[in-house]
Amino acid sequence: MEKVKIYEGKAKILYDVGDDKIIAYYKDDITAFNGQKRCKIKGKGMINNFISSYLFKFLEDKGIKTHFIKRLNEREQLLKKVEIVPLEVIVRNVASGSFSKRLGIEDGTKLDFPVFEICYKNDALGDPLINDYHAVALKIVSFEELKEIYSISKKVNKILKDFFDEIGIELVDFKLEFGRFNGEILLADEISPDTCRFWDKNTGEKLDKDRFRKELGDVLEGYSKILKRLNGEDKDEGIN
Amino acid sequence: MEKVKIYEGKAKILYDVGDDKIIAYYKDDITAFNGQKRCKIKGKGMINNFISSYLFKFLEDKGIKTHFIKRLNEREQLLKKVEIVPLEVIVRNVASGSFSKRLGIEDGTKLDFPVFEICYKNDALGDPLINDYHAVALKIVSFEELKEIYSISKKVNKILKDFFDEIGIELVDFKLEFGRFNGEILLADEISPDTCRFWDKNTGEKLDKDRFRKELGDVLEGYSKILKRLNGEDKDEGIN
Ligand SMILES: Nc1ncnc2c1ncn2[C@@H]1O[C@H](COP(=O)(O)OP(=O)(O)O)[C@@H](O)[C@H]1O
Ligand SMILES: Nc1ncnc2c1ncn2[C@@H]1O[C@H](COP(=O)(O)OP(=O)(O)O)[C@@H](O)[C@H]1O
Ligand SMILES: [Mg+2]
Ligand SMILES: [Mg+2]
Repeated sequence: MEKVKIYEGKAKILYDVGDDKIIAYYKDDITAFNGQKRCKIKGKGMINNFISSYLFKFLEDKGIKTHFIKRLNEREQLLKKVEIVPLEVIVRNVASGSFSKRLGIEDGTKLDFPVFEICYKNDALGDPLINDYHAVALKIVSFEELKEIYSISKKVNKILKDFFDEIGIELVDFKLEFGRFNGEILLADEISPDTCRFWDKNTGEKLDKDRFRKELGDVLEGYSKILKRLNGEDKDEGIN
Repeated sequence: MEKVKIYEGKAKILYDVGDDKIIAYYKDDITAFNGQKRCKIKGKGMINNFISSYLFKFLEDKGIKTHFIKRLNEREQLLKKVEIVPLEVIVRNVASGSFSKRLGIEDGTKLDFPVFEICYKNDALGDPLINDYHAVALKIVSFEELKEIYSISKKVNKILKDFFDEIGIELVDFKLEFGRFNGEILLADEISPDTCRFWDKNTGEKLDKDRFRKELGDVLEGYSKILKRLNGEDKDEGIN
């Protein structure tokens, strides 16, 4: 199997392996504030690879169509090679981050319904918030595809919110990416503490990239707690 | 008739005159960049009062429900007193301004379909762009009301775009505000060169607030040209 490097992003490297498949290699790099803050956190890539693989497998089992084929090893996943729609779809259950700042709604406020946002995935423009008209005017997606993307995002939120709730974690918000594959829209990219806000339900402890953004403590420790919870360990946060 | 001053904004003063009615007095003040740039332009208020009155009367005649009752004099209009929905609804036919910057689409690009945007009318937050979920999460409007607001905005765009086209002006974009009155959504506020982008169809000359924002020349001259066109004068831009 020939591996041809086709892209190196902020957190992953992609290799084309033919047959409409790619391998995603999870790096230890972590970035924030549109790439202005950058670090390496040893082991982060491994943990995110495990977490994202777990969650994509879980979503597939619940009927969500994704790019995921299988985890290959500690750092790599085999994936369907999709044509990425350059949108970041953000789903919010609790006000936080840019949402709170933009609207003046206090961080931590529970939302009455899931809030969806789309950002134009374009580093040069700073991944700006856009609306559906903007996305279609940019010719990156059709109104039909957007409808499908929102519909999948809503399902993913229901599934993940309930799942994390059961393991003692509040799913505050998360970012999804989608791609086209054989005329279908598939859930792609990753779902990990790099792309979600996870709060411990009992202690409120943040177990996600906000530890890095805001220097809240050992980043890897937070990420590891998520992985442990997925594996049925570390249920009683008080002891650890 | 007792006149009680109830609000002084950036461009108008509102007086309550009882019986669910207000008078809007059009000032000569002009502001841009969220109030950071401020001037007085002698006569601007008068011209905008004439233009906005003309356009609201025109829209009423085409079946759009508005707050407009009548123009009282050179500076004042009598209006239904509405409960303003704190949204700025922007309708775009041609890329310009913040839209072009946000999306990296060249200023002057014709759009394939009208683009609608909503901003949260909140000076402290800088009138941020928001989406429908945001607006409802802010509890300033319901999804139903938003649907009605978009529907009216679409109709207003059709009517005004065609009308301005006939008098040699390209309606590039404009901002609308809406209010609640007896359980109905009415078009409110003003429609003027302060709130629209008007480009001369032949020469491309800007006849709106961009003259002020970008120091493109005599502001009042541009606004006057719009008023003259409405009055059937100044058709041949070349002579003036
Ligand atoms: N199945 C897939 N096929 C093709 N590209 C993908 C797939 N899943 C994710 N991608 C893209 O691969 C890149 C992942 O690398 P990442 O380091 O996250 O990049 P970025 O810095 O662009 O976010 C992203 O650009 C993402 O959109
Ligand atoms: N019919 C109406 N009833 C009540 N308020 C209105 C009506 N039409 C417009 N308004 C409000 O009156 C104010 C108009 O004054 P303006 O100088 O434009 O204020 P601002 O600086 O807030 O934009 C705006 O806040 C606008 O929302
Ligand atoms: Mg990424
Ligand atoms: Mg105003």
